[in-house]
Amino acid sequence: MITAGSIERQPATRWMQRLDAWWRAANYLSVGQIYLLDNPLLREPLQPRHVKPRLLGHWGTVPGLTLTYAHLSRMIMRHKLDLMLVTGPGHGAAGLNAAAWLEGTYSECYPEISQDLDGMRRLFRQFSFPGGVPSHASAHLPGSVHEGGELGYSLAHATGAALDNPGLIAACVIGDGEAETGPLATSWHATSFLSPERDGAVLPILHLNGYKIANPTLLARMHRHELNSLLIGHGWRPMEVGGSDPDEVHEAYADALEKCVLGIQEIQAAARRGYGGRDRKWPMIVLRTPKGWTGPHDIDGKQVEGSWRSHQVPFAAVREDAHHLACLEQWMLSYRPEELFEANGAPVPMIRDHRPLGTDRISAKPITLGQVQRDLKLPDPAEHAAAVPAPGVVTAESTRLLGQYLRDAVELNPNNLLLFAPDEHASNRLDAVFEVTGRRWQLAIEPGDDHLSPNGRVLEVLSEHLCQGWLEGYLLTGRHGLLSSYEAFAHVVDSMVAQHAKWLHTAAKIPWRRPIPSLNYLLTSHVWRQDHNGASHQDPGFVDHVLNKRPEVVRVYLPPDANCLLSVADHCLRSHGLVNVIVSGKQPALQYLDADAAAAHCEQGLGVWRWASTDADGDTDVVMACAGDVPTQETLAAVKVLLEFVPDLRIRVVNVVDLARLAPPEQHPHGIGDTAYREIFTDAPAIFAYHGYPWLVHRLTYRRPGHDDMHVHGFHENGTTTTPFDMCVLNELDRYHLALAALERVPRVAGRLGHVRQQLLDRLAVHHDHIRRTGEDLPEIRDWRWTP
Amino acid sequence: MITAGSIERQPATRWMQRLDAWWRAANYLSVGQIYLLDNPLLREPLQPRHVKPRLLGHWGTVPGLTLTYAHLSRMIMRHKLDLMLVTGPGHGAAGLNAAAWLEGTYSECYPEISQDLDGMRRLFRQFSFPGGVPSHASAHLPGSVHEGGELGYSLAHATGAALDNPGLIAACVIGDGEAETGPLATSWHATSFLSPERDGAVLPILHLNGYKIANPTLLARMHRHELNSLLIGHGWRPMEVGGSDPDEVHEAYADALEKCVLGIQEIQAAARRGYGGRDRKWPMIVLRTPKGWTGPHDIDGKQVEGSWRSHQVPFAAVREDAHHLACLEQWMLSYRPEELFEANGAPVPMIRDHRPLGTDRISAKPITLGQVQRDLKLPDPAEHAAAVPAPGVVTAESTRLLGQYLRDAVELNPNNLLLFAPDEHASNRLDAVFEVTGRRWQLAIEPGDDHLSPNGRVLEVLSEHLCQGWLEGYLLTGRHGLLSSYEAFAHVVDSMVAQHAKWLHTAAKIPWRRPIPSLNYLLTSHVWRQDHNGASHQDPGFVDHVLNKRPEVVRVYLPPDANCLLSVADHCLRSHGLVNVIVSGKQPALQYLDADAAAAHCEQGLGVWRWASTDADGDTDVVMACAGDVPTQETLAAVKVLLEFVPDLRIRVVNVVDLARLAPPEQHPHGIGDTAYREIFTDAPAIFAYHGYPWLVHRLTYRRPGHDDMHVHGFHENGTTTTPFDMCVLNELDRYHLALAALERVPRVAGRLGHVRQQLLDRLAVHHDHIRRTGEDLPEIRDWRWTP
Repeated sequence: MITAGSIERQPATRWMQRLDAWWRAANYLSVGQIYLLDNPLLREPLQPRHVKPRLLGHWGTVPGLTLTYAHLSRMIMRHKLDLMLVTGPGHGAAGLNAAAWLEGTYSECYPEISQDLDGMRRLFRQFSFPGGVPSHASAHLPGSVHEGGELGYSLAHATGAALDNPGLIAACVIGDGEAETGPLATSWHATSFLSPERDGAVLPILHLNGYKIANPTLLARMHRHELNSLLIGHGWRPMEVGGSDPDEVHEAYADALEKCVLGIQEIQAAARRGYGGRDRKWPMIVLRTPKGWTGPHDIDGKQVEGSWRSHQVPFAAVREDAHHLACLEQWMLSYRPEELFEANGAPVPMIRDHRPLGTDRISAKPITLGQVQRDLKLPDPAEHAAAVPAPGVVTAESTRLLGQYLRDAVELNPNNLLLFAPDEHASNRLDAVFEVTGRRWQLAIEPGDDHLSPNGRVLEVLSEHLCQGWLEGYLLTGRHGLLSSYEAFAHVVDSMVAQHAKWLHTAAKIPWRRPIPSLNYLLTSHVWRQDHNGASHQDPGFVDHVLNKRPEVVRVYLPPDANCLLSVADHCLRSHGLVNVIVSGKQPALQYLDADAAAAHCEQGLGVWRWASTDADGDTDVVMACAGDVPTQETLAAVKVLLEFVPDLRIRVVNVVDLARLAPPEQHPHGIGDTAYREIFTDAPAIFAYHGYPWLVHRLTYRRPGHDDMHVHGFHENGTTTTPFDMCVLNELDRYHLALAALERVPRVAGRLGHVRQQLLDRLAVHHDHIRRTGEDLPEIRDWRWTP
Repeated sequence: MITAGSIERQPATRWMQRLDAWWRAANYLSVGQIYLLDNPLLREPLQPRHVKPRLLGHWGTVPGLTLTYAHLSRMIMRHKLDLMLVTGPGHGAAGLNAAAWLEGTYSECYPEISQDLDGMRRLFRQFSFPGGVPSHASAHLPGSVHEGGELGYSLAHATGAALDNPGLIAACVIGDGEAETGPLATSWHATSFLSPERDGAVLPILHLNGYKIANPTLLARMHRHELNSLLIGHGWRPMEVGGSDPDEVHEAYADALEKCVLGIQEIQAAARRGYGGRDRKWPMIVLRTPKGWTGPHDIDGKQVEGSWRSHQVPFAAVREDAHHLACLEQWMLSYRPEELFEANGAPVPMIRDHRPLGTDRISAKPITLGQVQRDLKLPDPAEHAAAVPAPGVVTAESTRLLGQYLRDAVELNPNNLLLFAPDEHASNRLDAVFEVTGRRWQLAIEPGDDHLSPNGRVLEVLSEHLCQGWLEGYLLTGRHGLLSSYEAFAHVVDSMVAQHAKWLHTAAKIPWRRPIPSLNYLLTSHVWRQDHNGASHQDPGFVDHVLNKRPEVVRVYLPPDANCLLSVADHCLRSHGLVNVIVSGKQPALQYLDADAAAAHCEQGLGVWRWASTDADGDTDVVMACAGDVPTQETLAAVKVLLEFVPDLRIRVVNVVDLARLAPPEQHPHGIGDTAYREIFTDAPAIFAYHGYPWLVHRLTYRRPGHDDMHVHGFHENGTTTTPFDMCVLNELDRYHLALAALERVPRVAGRLGHVRQQLLDRLAVHHDHIRRTGEDLPEIRDWRWTP
C-alpha cells in the first residue's frame, strides 16, 4: 500500500498544485451539474430558485473518477501515452462531463456549452434534465465508449478496445459494486488472452470506495491480503493507493501510475523483442478513497462522506431547508472556485493547461468516436458457394462453408477482424479458420492442444459475457467481428445486447460519432438440432428479445441454406451501426439456391420460390411460407405431401430470409409496403413454418391484409434429446402437420379432409413407432430430397 | 497437493477395493448408456446391432463425477452426513444415472428399470433415446436439483440449498469449463454470506479435467499457485487431489474429504458455540484427473483420454468400423464387469452395499425431491392495506406497503423464507423488513453500516446471477423466497429463468417430485420511473421473455396499486411450481381499490372498473383498457379528458392485473373464454394502455373477437432521464395521446375531431415547454386526482 509515509513525503509540487486545482474544478462542476439551475459560480448568495427542482445524479463515485481522470491526463502528457478511459461507474457522468468541459472537448462537441459562465450554466442545467443529457455516461459523452447504466462490462470493454491496438493503454475504472457482478468477476481472466506483442494493455483501476447503494462492497471489506491474493491469482500485480488526504493520495497515485506505465512498457518491450515468458503479471491499481470524498462529511447528524449515503444526491431538501441550502453553498465554495475559474467562467490557465493536446485528450480520442476505422476486405461469397445443381438435391453444412469464407476474411484482415465464441468455433464447424490462425491463448501450450496461439484471431472462452464484452469493445473502437454461439445461450447476453442496441440508437443521432461496425451474431446449434443436448439447449427467443429494441438498429436473418448464409454474413460484416442476428444450422442440410440466386434472394429478403410453387398469378390455393433452414425443408416436404394428395393444388412457396421484411415499413426500416406484401402472400390462406416462437411472425404481420388467415407453426417449448424429425413433430412443424394445416384451409379439399387427415396421422404413427424403436428417423425422412 | 508419495502409501484396503469396484461399475454403466442398445453385460461378442445408431452423450466428465459420487457416499456412511450433491457438469448425466441405478433409487423411481439384466438393458437404451431421458441431468434424475445444460450456476445452487439447512453439506462439483463463466466466477463469494451458525456448508469440488469441447480450461492451465491464490482470496482453503493412478487418487481423495468434513465441522461448531471469528476459510477440493479417465487412451493414433477428444463420444464409427467396435468392447471389459455384476445383472453385494441407507443415498435425498417443505405462514394482506377512502384520491408507495407485509412474513417464517435483491432492497422501498432482520453479511461490520447481520434474512449482492441462483437453490430444496430487482436488469438472468421454467415444466410430470415453491419476482423501479437513471434502466421485456416459456408454469401480474400488489404477492408466495413475475412501481402513486375490492379484482385477474366507467350494457363507445400502475393512471386521466370534450361519451374502463387472462384458455391456463372476454371488452373499439412492449398484448389477444379494433399503446424504446409525464409522452402512453386515440375510433366524434386534436396537441405543447423550462411536470399532472 502506497500511502502517507510509505514513500518519502515532499512538499506539494507544482504539478500537484495544478492537478489538484483541476480536480477541485472538476468536482465543483460535478456538484453544480447535480444541483444548480443557475448562479453557477455562486457569485451571488445561493437561493432556492438557483437549485434544480428534481435533483438527479450520483455523487458518490464522482471524486474517484475525476481524480483518476486528472492523474491519467498527467501520465498522457508525461509519457506521450496513447490512452483511453473506460469508466465502469458510468453513473458518475457528472464528473466525466466536467472533465470533458475542462478539456475543451465538450464545447467543441456542443458549441452552446461554451467554456465560459454561460456555457457553465448550460452544462449544469442540461445534466439529467429534460432535453439534456442523461445522468449516466452515454453516447452523448465525448471520449466514452461505455454505457454506464448496467454494471459489469467495463473491464471486458477495455479488453476489447486493447485487442489489436498495440500502442494503446485502455485504462479502466472498475467500481467495487460492479466488481461483484459475474461478468466482471470473470473479466479478470483477460490476462490469459491479451497478447503483449500484438495487443495494447489494459490498466484496471479497481476503485474501492467501500459502498454500493446501501451495502458495503465485498472487495472493499474483504481482507486486504485476500483481495491481493484474488487479483494475483488472476495474473495481475495490484498496487494499492489509498487515503483521504488529497496531497498524499496525489503523490501515491502518481507514483503508482508511473510504475504501472513502466511495468506495461517492460512487458510489451520484452514480448516484442521475442522473449518475456508467460510469467508476466500485468500491473493494476487498487484505489481506496472515501465514497463522496470532498463532499459534506455529515448532514443532519448522519455520516455522508465515506458512507453509502453519498451514493446519489447526498442531501436533497435544498429548496426547502435553509440548512441544506447553506450546506450546499459551503460545500461548493470549499473547492475555492475563485481560484479555479476566471471572471468569464473559463477555467484559469493552470487548469486549462492540465490537458493533453488535441486528440490525446481522453475526451477527444478518435478511436472512441468511431473515427479510426480500417476498411474491411472481404472475399467474394461466391467463391465459397456450395455447388447447387438443382434445388434440394445436395446437402452441405452451412456453417462449414461460412468457416471457409471467414478463413479468407481473417487472412485478408490481419489486424481488423476477430472471431469470438464460447469454446464452440470448431463444434459450430467454423474450423476452417484454423487453417490460417489459432485460438488466442497466453497460458502454457501443451502437446495435443488444438490450434492455440498467443496471437490467434479467434478468441474462445466459456463465457458468453466475455465474448460479447470483448467484441463490443473491439467494435466500439472501430474494428470488425463476429460472435458465434449456440442459439439458446445467446440469452446469457440478453441484457448486454439490449444496452448495446440502446447505445447504437443514441450514437446514431450524435453528429460527431461515426457509425461503428455492426455487432454480428451467428446463432447456430439451434433449437431444432439439439440431438445431443435436449431441452436446455432449445430456445429460439434471442431474436424476439433483439426485435424488441429500436427497429432502426436491429436486423434478423434466417438463411435457408449455405449460399444464403454466405450472402447474409457478407452483408452483415459490411454493415455499420446495427445488431445483426443470423440463425443458421450447422448440420448437413439440403441446399436450394446457387450463389447468384442466393444473393438475389437475400437482397430481396423474402420472395416466392417459383421452382417450388405450383400456382400461377391469381389462382393460389394456399401459401406455404417458411423462415429458417429446418422449417424450409419441412415446408418443401409438405408441398410434396400436398401434391401427392391433391395433385392439382396451387401452392405458392414463400421463403423469408430477412425477418423484418414482414413488418410494415412504418414499423421497421426493412419492412415492405402492403402492396408488395400482398403480391407475395396473395389473398390465399398462408401456413407459415417459422424457426422460433410463432407469435413473433404474428407480431410482424398482424396489421397485414389477410393476417386472419395466416397460421404460424413454430416452437412451442416442446423438446428433449430426440431425433430431428421428432423435434418437428413435437412442435407440429413437420411436413405432415404443415400439410394438414394447409389442407384444412383449402375449401375444395373439404370433402376429402377426413380421409387425408387419417392417412397423415397414420404416417406420423409409423414414424413415431420407428423412432421409439430404433432411435432414428426413417430413411425416407433422413434422405428426403426435393427432386429425387 | 495430496498425491502419491505425499501421504504414506498403504496397500489397497477393503474400503478402497469396494469403492473402486463401485466406481468401475458406474463407469461401465455410463459407457453402456452412451453406446449400447443391447447385450448390456457383453455376454455375447459385441455386434454392430448391439450399438445405438445415434451415439449421444458426454463421456469426458463422467469418471470424475462417478469417482466423486463414490467417495461422497463413503463419507456419508463414515460420518452419517446429511449431504446432497450438485453437479455442474450435468451433461455427464450417464454417470449420475449409473450411480442412482447402483444405489437402487433408479429402480424405485422407474420400476421397469430394475436392478437386473433387463433393467440394465432398459437403462442403456433409454439414455438420450427418443422417449427416454435426456443426456443432461434434468428433473428425471433422482437426487438432482440442477439442470446440467447451461453452465454457470452449480455453486450458486449449492449455496442456496445450504441456506437455512444447518445440518446439510451441499457438495458441488464445478467443471473447469463452467468455472470460466461469469456467474460461477462470482459464486466463490458465497463465503461472505454463508452463516456457519444458521446455514449448512457448501463443499466445492473444482474438477480440473483440463479441457472444454476444444480448448484447455483456464483454471486447469494457470499456475497451480495462481489458482490457489485465487481461491484463497475468495475465502476458501483448497486441497488438491490429483493423479491418474486410481488407488493413489482414492487414497488422496478420501484423505482430503476427511479433512474437509472435519474442517466444516470445526468451523460450524466454533460458530455455534458463539465464537470463531471471521477469519475462517471453508475447505474445498481441487480435483485434477484426466478428462475421459479410464477410457481409451488413443484412437486412430490420436490421444483421447486426457484430451478434449473425450468430451462427448470418444469414437463414433462403432457400427461401421470393426476396430472401433473392438475398442469399445475392450474398453467396457477393462472394467471387469464379471466382478461387478451377478449372473442376473444385479450389482454384486460388495457394490450394492456401498451406499448409504434409505434417504441418505445421494440419489434419494428428500430435500432434492421437494419432499421436505415447511408450510409458509403469511400475514393477512388486508392488515397492511392502504386506506383508500375513494378511488384515485390518495397516494402511496406500493412497494413500501409490501415491505411491511414482507416484514411480518419474515418474522413468521424464521427459517423458511428469504428475500434476495441486488443491493436494492431499501432503494426499492422494502426496508420495513429491516425492522425485524438484517442483511446477511459475514465480513467485518463497521460503524455506519446499515442493518448488516451474520444471520440476516435478506441477501443482497450486486449480482442478479447470484440472487437468482441462490433463490433457485433455496426453492429447489423446498423453501420460499422473493427476488426484487430493477425491472430492466431482470434481463441479466433471462437465461437462468428460462432454464428454471424448463425444469419446473419437466418436474411437474414426474410423480415422485413434489411441486416446489414458486420463483417469485418483484420487478420494480420500472421503465416509466427511471427519473434518475434514464435509458439504460428502461426495459420492460422480461415479461415477454418469461411468457415465451411453457404457459403451464409462467404467470405475470401488473397490480395497479398497493392493495392489488399485496393481494398478488400473497397469492404468489402461496403458490407452487410457477415462475411469477410481479411488476409494480415504488414511487408515490394513486390508490384505487380498498383491500376487499383489490382482493376481488386480483382474484378475477381483470375486470371492468364500474366506478370509472360511464357506459351501460350494450352502449359502450370505447373501452379504455390498462395494465400496469402508470398506464392505469394515464388511462383514468384520459377518461377525464375525454369526458371534458365529449361529456356523454360512454366509456368502459377495464383493468388487467393477471396478463395471461387476456389469452384464450387453450393458450394459457389462466386465459378466459371468448364469451367472458367479450362481456368485458364488448364490441367497441379498445385503447389499451400497457406497461411494456405493446405487441405482447396483441400476441395475447390476436385471436380474440374485435382484435382488429384493439389499439395498444406501450413502450417503444423512447426514453432518457426525464420527467415521469414526459416519458409517457415520448411513448404516446400519456392521457392526451390515449384520449386522442380513443376519439379517433368513435364515429360520432368525427365532426369535431380536428378541433379536439388541436386542443390536445396544444396542451402537450404547453407541457413540453414547461418541462423543458423547469425540469418538472406541471402541477396539474403531478397532483392529478381522479376525484378532486
